[in-house]
Formats: sequence, C-alpha cells, structure tokens
Amino acid sequence: MGQSLTHKILSNHLVNGELKVGTEIGIRIDQTLTQDATGTMACLQFEALAIPRVRTEVSVSYIDHNMLQTGFENADDHRYLQSMASRYGIVFSRPGNGICHQVHRERFAQPGKTLLGSDSHTPTAGGLGMLAIGAGGLDVAVAMAGEPYFLPMPKVLGVYLSGTLQPWCTGKDVILEVLRQLTVKGGVGKIIEYYGPGVKTLSASHRFTITNMGAELGATTSVFPSDERVLAFLEAQGRKEAWMPLEADPDASFDETLTVDLDQLEPMIARPSSPDNVVTVRSVAGTAVAQVCIGSCTNSSYEDLATAALMLRGKTVHPEVSLTLTPGSKQVFEMIVRDGFFSDLTAAGARILESACGPCIGMGQAPPTGAVSVRSFNRNFKGRSGTAEDQVYLASPEVCVACALTGRITDPRDLGIDLITVDTPQAFLVHDNMLVPPPADPAQVEVKRGPNIKPVPLAEPLHAQIHAQLVLKLGDNISTDHILPAGAKVLPLRSNIPAISEFVFMRVDPTFPERCRAAGSAIVVGGSNYGQGSSREHAALAPMYLGLKAVIVKSFARIHRANLINFGILPAVFEDEADYDCLEQGDDLELVDTHTGITTGRITVRNRTRGTSFDVTVHLTPREQELLLAGGLLSYIKHKQNLTAAVS
Amino acid sequence: MGQSLTHKILSNHLVNGELKVGTEIGIRIDQTLTQDATGTMACLQFEALAIPRVRTEVSVSYIDHNMLQTGFENADDHRYLQSMASRYGIVFSRPGNGICHQVHRERFAQPGKTLLGSDSHTPTAGGLGMLAIGAGGLDVAVAMAGEPYFLPMPKVLGVYLSGTLQPWCTGKDVILEVLRQLTVKGGVGKIIEYYGPGVKTLSASHRFTITNMGAELGATTSVFPSDERVLAFLEAQGRKEAWMPLEADPDASFDETLTVDLDQLEPMIARPSSPDNVVTVRSVAGTAVAQVCIGSCTNSSYEDLATAALMLRGKTVHPEVSLTLTPGSKQVFEMIVRDGFFSDLTAAGARILESACGPCIGMGQAPPTGAVSVRSFNRNFKGRSGTAEDQVYLASPEVCVACALTGRITDPRDLGIDLITVDTPQAFLVHDNMLVPPPADPAQVEVKRGPNIKPVPLAEPLHAQIHAQLVLKLGDNISTDHILPAGAKVLPLRSNIPAISEFVFMRVDPTFPERCRAAGSAIVVGGSNYGQGSSREHAALAPMYLGLKAVIVKSFARIHRANLINFGILPAVFEDEADYDCLEQGDDLELVDTHTGITTGRITVRNRTRGTSFDVTVHLTPREQELLLAGGLLSYIKHKQNLTAAVS
Repeated sequence: MGQSLTHKILSNHLVNGELKVGTEIGIRIDQTLTQDATGTMACLQFEALAIPRVRTEVSVSYIDHNMLQTGFENADDHRYLQSMASRYGIVFSRPGNGICHQVHRERFAQPGKTLLGSDSHTPTAGGLGMLAIGAGGLDVAVAMAGEPYFLPMPKVLGVYLSGTLQPWCTGKDVILEVLRQLTVKGGVGKIIEYYGPGVKTLSASHRFTITNMGAELGATTSVFPSDERVLAFLEAQGRKEAWMPLEADPDASFDETLTVDLDQLEPMIARPSSPDNVVTVRSVAGTAVAQVCIGSCTNSSYEDLATAALMLRGKTVHPEVSLTLTPGSKQVFEMIVRDGFFSDLTAAGARILESACGPCIGMGQAPPTGAVSVRSFNRNFKGRSGTAEDQVYLASPEVCVACALTGRITDPRDLGIDLITVDTPQAFLVHDNMLVPPPADPAQVEVKRGPNIKPVPLAEPLHAQIHAQLVLKLGDNISTDHILPAGAKVLPLRSNIPAISEFVFMRVDPTFPERCRAAGSAIVVGGSNYGQGSSREHAALAPMYLGLKAVIVKSFARIHRANLINFGILPAVFEDEADYDCLEQGDDLELVDTHTGITTGRITVRNRTRGTSFDVTVHLTPREQELLLAGGLLSYIKHKQNLTAAVS
Repeated sequence: MGQSLTHKILSNHLVNGELKVGTEIGIRIDQTLTQDATGTMACLQFEALAIPRVRTEVSVSYIDHNMLQTGFENADDHRYLQSMASRYGIVFSRPGNGICHQVHRERFAQPGKTLLGSDSHTPTAGGLGMLAIGAGGLDVAVAMAGEPYFLPMPKVLGVYLSGTLQPWCTGKDVILEVLRQLTVKGGVGKIIEYYGPGVKTLSASHRFTITNMGAELGATTSVFPSDERVLAFLEAQGRKEAWMPLEADPDASFDETLTVDLDQLEPMIARPSSPDNVVTVRSVAGTAVAQVCIGSCTNSSYEDLATAALMLRGKTVHPEVSLTLTPGSKQVFEMIVRDGFFSDLTAAGARILESACGPCIGMGQAPPTGAVSVRSFNRNFKGRSGTAEDQVYLASPEVCVACALTGRITDPRDLGIDLITVDTPQAFLVHDNMLVPPPADPAQVEVKRGPNIKPVPLAEPLHAQIHAQLVLKLGDNISTDHILPAGAKVLPLRSNIPAISEFVFMRVDPTFPERCRAAGSAIVVGGSNYGQGSSREHAALAPMYLGLKAVIVKSFARIHRANLINFGILPAVFEDEADYDCLEQGDDLELVDTHTGITTGRITVRNRTRGTSFDVTVHLTPREQELLLAGGLLSYIKHKQNLTAAVS
C-alpha cells in the first residue's frame, strides 16, 4: 500500500510516536514563522526558555498585523521584535515587506519540509508541498528551541480534483466549494491532501489560496503535490534548488476522500457570517455593495492584483463603492508597479493600503453599518471587520472587482468583458532588502522593550479538585474572534496580558472579565467546534489570567485545544451531549479528582447548584497530562531543562 | 498710497464694515471646503439652516481625515457626507482622492477669490493669490448658506523676500525661519503677505508649503502674489482661465514688515514639541531617528515626492528606521507612478500609506516611546502623533530622506550626493474621476445617516449672571489638540458630541468631563495664545455640552475665540494679567451682569471662594454680542431667518 504525500513528510520528520490516527506524534520542525500579533508573546516565551539561538533551519519574524499604529504599543513591539530577531538568530521581515504567508511562500517555503507558524494561515505554504501547520505562539517558541512539535496524528482527507477551471473560476472557488461541502468543522483532526488530474491544471497561486483558506475547515493543514508547476514557481523566485518532486504514491490510500470536479465549478461566494455559508454568486447577484476589499494572505498575489488591474483598466470604481487594495508583499507591490498594473488601480480610484493584513483582521476599513462588504479574504465572522452589524461576503478578486464596478454583487461572467488570465511570471522580482538577516554576533544585541511589553503570566499546576463557577455558557462554532477579538483596539495589547484580558469575550458578554475575576475560579461551557479560527494563544492565555480553570464543550478546534493545555486550562468534552442542556450560567461546579481523571480519561462534574452530576471525557496524551500537572508548557519545558542541567 | 494684495481682495469682497484694523468686517465667500472630521458637524449645521442648495460659486466636501476606519463611524460619516453633498449641490471628493488642501489647490483654488474652509490649513490656497481662511465648521456652514463671513480686520504683515534659495533649501525652511522669528503667536490678528524680489524665485509648490504652515503662526491667513509662476501652475493644471495677475501696489504699505533673505537660509528643523522651536538641522545632527514620515498637506506634492524618490533611488531605508510616505492626492499618486518615482520608493522600503492626512493628525504611525520621529508635517504638539512621550521634529522632505537613509538627523548637504531639483511639471495629469459633481436634481437625494450621527446640541442664551466653578487652570499656548485631541480614537466621534465630549482635555486632565458635569456650570482659565492650532469647533462645542460657560485667558487664538462665541461660550481676557496668579482650580466664580458687560467691554468677576474680585475685558463686536445673547450662531441665524420669513 503506497503512502500519501502527508505520510511521506511526517515519516521523514517523526521523532515520537507512530503514524496511527489519534495517537500523539512528535515531529521535527525545520522552519518557523511568527508575526507581530502572536510573535511578541512567542518571543517573550522563547526568552523565558533561556536558549542562546534558535535551533531551526530558518526562523522568520514578520511584521504585518499591527501596522496602523494608532498608539505607541505597535512601534514599541516592532522594535522589540527586531532586536529579539537580531539577538536570537531570526530573520526579520521589516514592516512594509508584506504579509507573512505571502513572503514566506515567495522566499522561504520548501517542498518536503515542515513549517510551524504562530498564525492559523500558516498552511498556505502547503501549496508547494510543504507541511505547514499553525500553532500557538508557545508551541512555536518551543519549536524555535529545537523541541519537537506534538499533535494527535490526523486523518488524511484526500481531495480528488478532476477537470479544469472554467473561465472566471479560481482557486478561491475551489476552496469555497470545499467549505460548502465540509463546513467549518469538516477538517477538524484532518490534513487535507489534494491529488488527481486536476492538480496540474492549477497554478501555484491558485493552490496557495486553497491551502490558505483550508484553515477555515478547521484542518490541521492542507497540502498539494510538489510538481512541475511548483518547480516553475520556485525557479521564477530564483530558488530552483529548493525544489524536490513530491506526491502521493499512485496506490496511496486516504482515511477519507472527496471529489471536486473543476469543470463543474462556477464563481462562488460565502455569505455572512461564516466562511462555509457558500452559494453561487449568481444566486445573490444584484445585492447592493458599499465596500470591496481585495488583499489578505488568501488573495493578494501578483496574479490576483494584475487581474484586478486589467479588469479595472480605464474604468472608475462605482461611485457608491469604496474599493481598497492591499498588495500581499513588497515583491507583489514592486512588480505591479513595474508592469504598469498599479497605474490602472490608482487611476480607477482604488484606495491603496499598506502591504499588510489590514482590513482582513479588522485593522481599518470597517464597513458602514449594515452595508455589504465583499472581500477576497478568508473569514467573515460577525464583527471581525470592526463593524458590529457587518455584512461581509467572501469571494475571488475577480468577483470583487465585478462588484466594485457595478455596485452590486455580480458574477464576472455577467460583466460582458473578455476573460482575463494572468499567468505566473517567468521571473519574479527578487529584492530582499527588507529582510534583515541576524548579525554574526547576536550576543551583542540589546533587546529593546517598551512599557507595553509585560512578562508572560504562568498558570498554576492543575488543581486536584476544581471548584468553579460556570461563568459563561455558549453555543456552537465559537471562534477565537469571539473569545478574544483582534482589530485595531485589541491587537496592540498582544504583549500585555493584564491589559488585553479586559477584552475577553467583549463581543459576547462584556461583563465576562469582571464576573470571571469575581468568581475567582471559572468554567466556560460551549457547543461543538469551540475555538475555531485564528491560532491566537491569547484566547487561552488571557482567560487563564482571569481565572479560567476548565472549558467543557461538545468538541474543540485543534489549535485552541492545544493552546488551552499549553496554558494549564483543562479541556473537557461532554460524554453525553445532553448534559449540555442541563447546565445554566452561574451554576456552581466541581470537577472531582482531576489528577486521576486525566489518566483515566473521565472526570465527574458535580453541579452543586442543582445537586446533579455528569461525566466529561478528557482524552489527554501522557505528554498533555504532564503539561497540565506542570501548569502549562512553559513551566514544563523549564522544569525539563532544569532536570537535564541537574543530571549533566 | 498703494494697496496691499490683501486689501485688494478684501475690498472686492467687503459687504460689511471697513478695512480698519480691529473693527469687524464681513466678506463675501466665493468657495468653501470642508473635510470629514469637521464636515459632518458643518453639514449637520447646514441642514439645520434649511436652505435647499449651497449659495457659493463652489463648495467641496473632502474625505481625508478619518481614513483608517477602525470602527463603523467613519464609513457611516463618509456615506452621510456623500449623500449630503449630492443633496445640497456640493462637489464630493471621494476617499482616496487626496488631502483637501492639495486637491483644492490643484483643481479649484483661484487667484483673487475668497475661500473659507473648516480646516486650519485652508490658507494653503494663498500660495496662488487666493484669500483662504480657516474657520469653524459652523462659520463654513453659514458661508455655504450665502451669508458673509465676519472677522476682525487683521493687520497685514508684509514679509519681504530677497535672494534665492540655496541648494537643498526649500519653502519649508522659509516658513520654519519665519516661525523661528515670529513664534506661534506672532501671526495672531494678522494676514501674512509675501512680497519682494525673492517671490518670483519660489515655485508654486514652495509657496503652498509656506502659506500652509503659516497657520502655525496663528495668522488669519498667508498670501502670495499671483504671478507668472502661478500662471504656469494653473496652465499645467489645465486651468489657465482661472488665472489673473494680482500683487501689492509698488507703494503699498504694510502694518508690519519682516525680511527674509533666501540667500542666507539653510536647512531648518523644528524640535519637539512646538513648530516654532526651530534650529538649523546641523545644530542637532547626529541624533538617532526611529521614524520618518513624509506627507501631509504641507509637503506631499509631486515635487516633494519625486525629490524624495530621487534621493532614495537604488538605496534602502536605514534598518532602524520606519519610513512612511503619504501622497497628497490621487493626482500626485498617479503622476509619481507614471514617472517611475514610485518604483524607487517601494524598492527602497518606504511604507506607502493612503493619500490622506494620516500620521499628521495622529491617524496611525504613532512612533515608539521616547524615540525621534522626523516628519515633513506642520505640527508637533506633544502627543499629537498618538504617542504620549513622543519626540517629533518637523523638516523638509529633503531633510526627512537624509534622516531615513542615515538613521540620524542629517543635513542633506552632508549626504555627499548631488543636488536634486524637481521642477513644476509642464502638465499635471488631470483625471477628476474621483470628484463626484452633484446631480441635476438634488432634491431627490436621500441623506443617509448612521447611528453615530447625532444632532447638534445648542447653547443656552448668555446668562445675565454666570455662577460657575473654575474647573481647570492652564498655562500658555494651549492648543485645540490639548482641548480635544484628534487621533484614531477621538476623530471618529466628530459627529457625535455626547460621545466625543468624554475626551475633552483628556491629555491634560482626564477627570475634566466628570468634574465639569459635576460643577454644572464651568469656567476654564488659561494663559496666552489659548486655542492655537487646528480649527476644530468641537473644541468649543464639546466643552459647551459639558457645561462650560466662559473662558478667561491672557489672549486667544483667532479661530478658537470665534468658535467659542459661535457656541455661546463667553471669551474673556484678564484686564490685569497679574489676576491670573490669584486664581486657583476649584474657585467659585461669579461674572456679574454680563448683559451690560458685553456692551461696555468689561465684566467684574467675583471670586466667592477667596472674597476677592477682578475685571475681565470682553471686546465683542455688536454682532458677536448678538450671537452670545442668542445662544450661538446657529440659533442667531435661525432667528434671523424666522424674522425675515415673518416680515415677507
């Protein structure tokens, strides 16, 4: 029986366990990436590990999230991250150099290697056959220290692609269709591996869009074969030597499969307010549009922006529409300028924003109240745009431009213009002057801290008896945007847990922080797919700081569950989902003998308010048990290092 | 005796009074401009006047301030302003079209005409011989209604220019030198008129920088002759027909004069935190720089950015410096792209921000704590950048680029590179597709309001007896940034007085709003030049909403004094400045018989806490007296309209 591409890469990097679905494996990490929203905390944690230099093949620190700089905090963080990068042997990508996932695929990603990134869209690099996983900042800090990354061995879901994309259809439509079929929970515990004859018909740019937005499936990652088109991409980046051919064996078996016939696809769009709320563009055509945003790590490649420019050439954005455009990287920016496309964009009245995440993470461009915004981005969770009453749709850049020209949701096939295709360039413009390599003698570098940069709080070791109040009861699909929003007000506080903890659950229940502190010990109850979305570990760290001891839900999203454990919060699952209905906010709960429970996998919860009790399951690997008993990953690693030091 | 250019324009527009210094005159306003930070309130006030269409030659509504859009408020405001413009016959400049003063000079400004703008840098248009005055939004709303603009007849200060600018010296160095000599109070009650043989050596672009930053002198406005260079500028804009020759008579006399010998000038820089804190660049050379920002209505012309590009060509911004660049208008943007300069900027690693006011008004790019930021802007008041502990320097774009390349404050003459000169283009690229003309039948347009747009509160008619608490005692040179900051948190609330009033004096004393409300009736005491800086009427309107009844100071800045009267707050001046020292915060004050006092010009103030009393002067024109008795300008005009309606 042949191997999947996924198994080939995992086998090559396996340092703990075996490739049996659901069991814990530890893999060697070749590359890491961090960005400035999660990276300050990752760096603070890396510092706490007291290791002189990163132990990866390459680690890159990007500045792309906090670029508006509406307060001193951001610039202070940038300065801190730059000095940390120099001090510990990390490549620093300066503000203005672009979005981490765009730059990383251009300049660093490599087929067959592993990448761990403190950003949920790290899987983007899977577009060229890399195993690229998003994780919490602490996991990335530990990987930077040369330690393996542990995860439950995922299932491999093979997506068989047949046919060829039809005119005006793109990679975005492929992933929107997959989201429509699988939903935002469909990828949990899985790696999505694309194969079949349709693969070779997709350019690298289309593939990157697909693997990027695979994050919205809840998948561990997504991966494409490394074939001739990947070679062409790497050659055009002047990195031919990074290429190796890599694909599933012809007789490989997958744990699950799905088929997408590219011939049958048409332009798709995700309606508000979930990326899986997908319909055809034509089915919602005619809806008035107030804003269109093109950019983000999903769709801001050279090909994306050149296509947008060609569609806008000689025209003007509809007078009722504000069109913003965010180039994905300095490379993209320089190239669209050089090739004349940028003239088309400015002439048509597009608002050009900095090369950064920008409006995709609520950093500016909040749409008008109740008005429709069509975006080429990856997420449309309620309020993420910065406007509480938003109406955000997700679609390809082609659909976006069609909407910007007409002021209505429009299928580009109905524009009556000729098909526009922009191929991968023969040669990208390579100009790495905004990547700062670490100096030869990093020990000389002084780390610069500002007043917003506070030490990382540590959790207490798991209490044998958890007696806590049910402070908040939630429904299904709670995202990390619900738990701790991003956006212009909150993101600048990412290196200051006491300050940012005031925003926990602010969009759901602004009284949460106060009630949590008042309770002393707190429990949150949720439905299924709890913690989907962004990888931000702050969604675990800040509630822990407020006193959260356990989360009891129907099911967890992968990264958030790992983050809970990393910060000493017990992740528990209802044994019987019906027990969810018997709980009410304010109930006084007691988790009995957790130290035994984490080994047996079951804990009894007494509801002291109602005099009832029920069981929760806590399927923890031995390593996860140790983490909880130690009070989280940081305490665990430090303890381990001390032991090693004592022995040697 | 010949006439000054100032007197010529005023004579042509005089509808009330005579040109006698200090007496009130009323002038006809040909053009108005508003922007989105002051314009929402101006529009709400214009609506309250119930006039079907603007009665000016041209009125333009610009979007350039609230462009970050970190909340729904901005986009809602933009939509409101666009619908208002259509409804009432106003040209709408869409977001992305550029900064009001840059676009207005390009496309609308005209020698010999008058312009009233709800922005303190409206005098920019004086660079081509227009009399362009900044005022509160309400004054502009009234001018849009066809009413005259009233002001005390200013002195005319003639600035005699001799010689020629030496290499690497610019208009910025001229105005910095004038600021050094005159200080931020030096222009109060004056119009600055440039004349002499040096004038013809200055390009239109240099002149606009000088008239723009003349606002920092506290001057009513600044004006240059309309000569061959103005003709060349207008021809290059395709607006030759707008030109007329205009200059002072050879035997004109000025109330005061000052001489600047351009031959003697060298590159200058304003140190933190006042625009008149001016020294030579060489005297502070070597200071480490963390940020450089080029842009703003002062220095973001085609010539400015092309020069910056040529200096940066083939180089990289110093690794410790973040360089941002904000094109002044879509015209500038399109031209620097077309002419290849934009490639130099992106290649060098400049961060390209939207064409807007941006960091100049604290809308993003707050510098790191305590670090030096060198900016081509016009103001460096403490904290205006968004960082409380900022260190902002002001200089020409040439000096800015020199700093960005070296990471230190650097005189460009010491860079060792050849002089770079960019002349005014023969033809500007004219592409007005982002200016929306009002429709033929504006009555059909529905005005769109969002939940952040609240009605304008009205003041009470002047109380005969003002009994109030001295809630805040301040020093000299209090700016409107002190009274009500701009920046990313506060600006979005400009159309919501109840919400924005919570930020009054936030950087000086965050307890002010609460203490003011608690006092019921409040008085603020200040030193000299009270209310300098921005024209924002919110600095009068919001304190009025909180209960401010009178301000007693050593002297007022012009626009703010007018704004106080417009919103029914009594502006009083210590008869004996020594009385300032006898007051303490918390004192219980009583202004006795104000109705008589405003006619006699003197009011007695009893200090009931200390049992003392002192006199204040209130030199009010008959019209200003009526405004206070009516409860402000809006109530006054409405009352007048009702009378007219009743008579006819």
